[in-house]
Amino acid sequence: MNVFVELLLFLVTLLYSYLEAFVKLFVPARRKSLSGELVLITGAGHGVGRATALEFAKRQSRLVLWDINKVKKDIGDVTILVTNAGVITTADFLSTQDHQIERMFEVNILGHMWTTRAFLPVMMNNNYGHIVTVASAAGHFVTPYMVAYCSSKFAAVGFHKALTEELCALGKDGIKTTCLCPVFINTGFVKNPSTRLGKILEVEEVVEALMEGIVTNQKMVFVPSNQGVALLLERVFPERALNLLKKMFEVKFDAVVGQRSTQ
Amino acid sequence: MNVFVELLLFLVTLLYSYLEAFVKLFVPARRKSLSGELVLITGAGHGVGRATALEFAKRQSRLVLWDINKVKKDIGDVTILVTNAGVITTADFLSTQDHQIERMFEVNILGHMWTTRAFLPVMMNNNYGHIVTVASAAGHFVTPYMVAYCSSKFAAVGFHKALTEELCALGKDGIKTTCLCPVFINTGFVKNPSTRLGKILEVEEVVEALMEGIVTNQKMVFVPSNQGVALLLERVFPERALNLLKKMFEVKFDAVVGQRSTQ
Repeated sequence: MNVFVELLLFLVTLLYSYLEAFVKLFVPARRKSLSGELVLITGAGHGVGRATALEFAKRQSRLVLWDINKVKKDIGDVTILVTNAGVITTADFLSTQDHQIERMFEVNILGHMWTTRAFLPVMMNNNYGHIVTVASAAGHFVTPYMVAYCSSKFAAVGFHKALTEELCALGKDGIKTTCLCPVFINTGFVKNPSTRLGKILEVEEVVEALMEGIVTNQKMVFVPSNQGVALLLERVFPERALNLLKKMFEVKFDAVVGQRSTQ
Repeated sequence: MNVFVELLLFLVTLLYSYLEAFVKLFVPARRKSLSGELVLITGAGHGVGRATALEFAKRQSRLVLWDINKVKKDIGDVTILVTNAGVITTADFLSTQDHQIERMFEVNILGHMWTTRAFLPVMMNNNYGHIVTVASAAGHFVTPYMVAYCSSKFAAVGFHKALTEELCALGKDGIKTTCLCPVFINTGFVKNPSTRLGKILEVEEVVEALMEGIVTNQKMVFVPSNQGVALLLERVFPERALNLLKKMFEVKFDAVVGQRSTQ
């Protein structure tokens, strides 16, 4: 194909995509049913994992819940497999121990990759499924005193994107993927977080956005959604302006006290 | 401070930053001398690591070279510490073994984080040093059949960004950071890579860009440099248009055959 034809094809596609996106703003998205679906949740004993399990239970999904913590028994009649994850504390990078770095990666990305790989063959055979990667805003934007955490969450975002791309290349269009990227959530992982960007998220609103993302097959779920704009600004604004902007937003917290689940 | 004043301050900073960037296009950048500097290179036995070692040697740096491979003895009169890294083969994510995923992270990011953490205290005390993270274009853009590789390289980019941010927050402005992100390099890691975007990079041109990035304290070194534009387009263009664009660029390769160094 000649370059001119290709360029024309690209421009037409670009215009069509923008138009499609605009129209979609006014058309309600199709939502898939989750009733009877088999759902495995790692880190289901705490925070986002636990609240997500409750939402799937409401929608009559069949649940398999994993966690290293004791899974609270009030989440209904479910199969519970207790596994992986652990408590991690961190501070400035210098005082982060080597084994803490390793553990952070195991909990935030390696465990998820291993689990995904274990369940992928069945999904591939059926060309059916949905893989949710719980990352973080810290997988796109960095914060001081969370070096190992940010790095492992960048890996989670990279995993989600690469897996999505590979499933597409393999023609497995029946397997959907969603990546959840919330800012600070009030789960006890970070102590006294605060920012001028908005109030700290409650678990419920994160899970609501996640469930909506799952039933509408959204690939990237930012909570709050204005992070998408911030990502664009990051590419366009020079460093000095970005640094000032960050100072103005006053993202701060007292200490990272721990993380109790794979999520 | 009132919001209006803050906004004004931001706009002035933004304009000043753009103006500064424009002026800098015409002013030659200051280059620091590397003579007598103590330089540790991991993965120095092969590819980019080895060629970088040769460049530092030319500039009269004192070298400490690490690699699990036999370090070729023709790189001059240097201290050689042999350590870390290993051979990794990968294919589609499904046929990637769990231990290969783990090894990929060890080689591409964990080893680098451990090494950095070990040498950081001295750098912090002196408020002097330069930490180079060798990532990849795959740390920003994903490719199918390289899921674990992409994920670990995303982690490397995240580590570089978070470390940079933390050093800034700690006021350690004497410690510089550089992240190297080349596309396919002709080092034998990927077999028969090809893309319409340009020819496959030779090790020499990557190292030339890296050395220039180091002596001018550039934070992100893209090779080729047009990847910065691609990152911006990725934020602005809708998915359908991006997918078409990727197809047009025809990034492909036969097989990922192995990786022999931490770089």
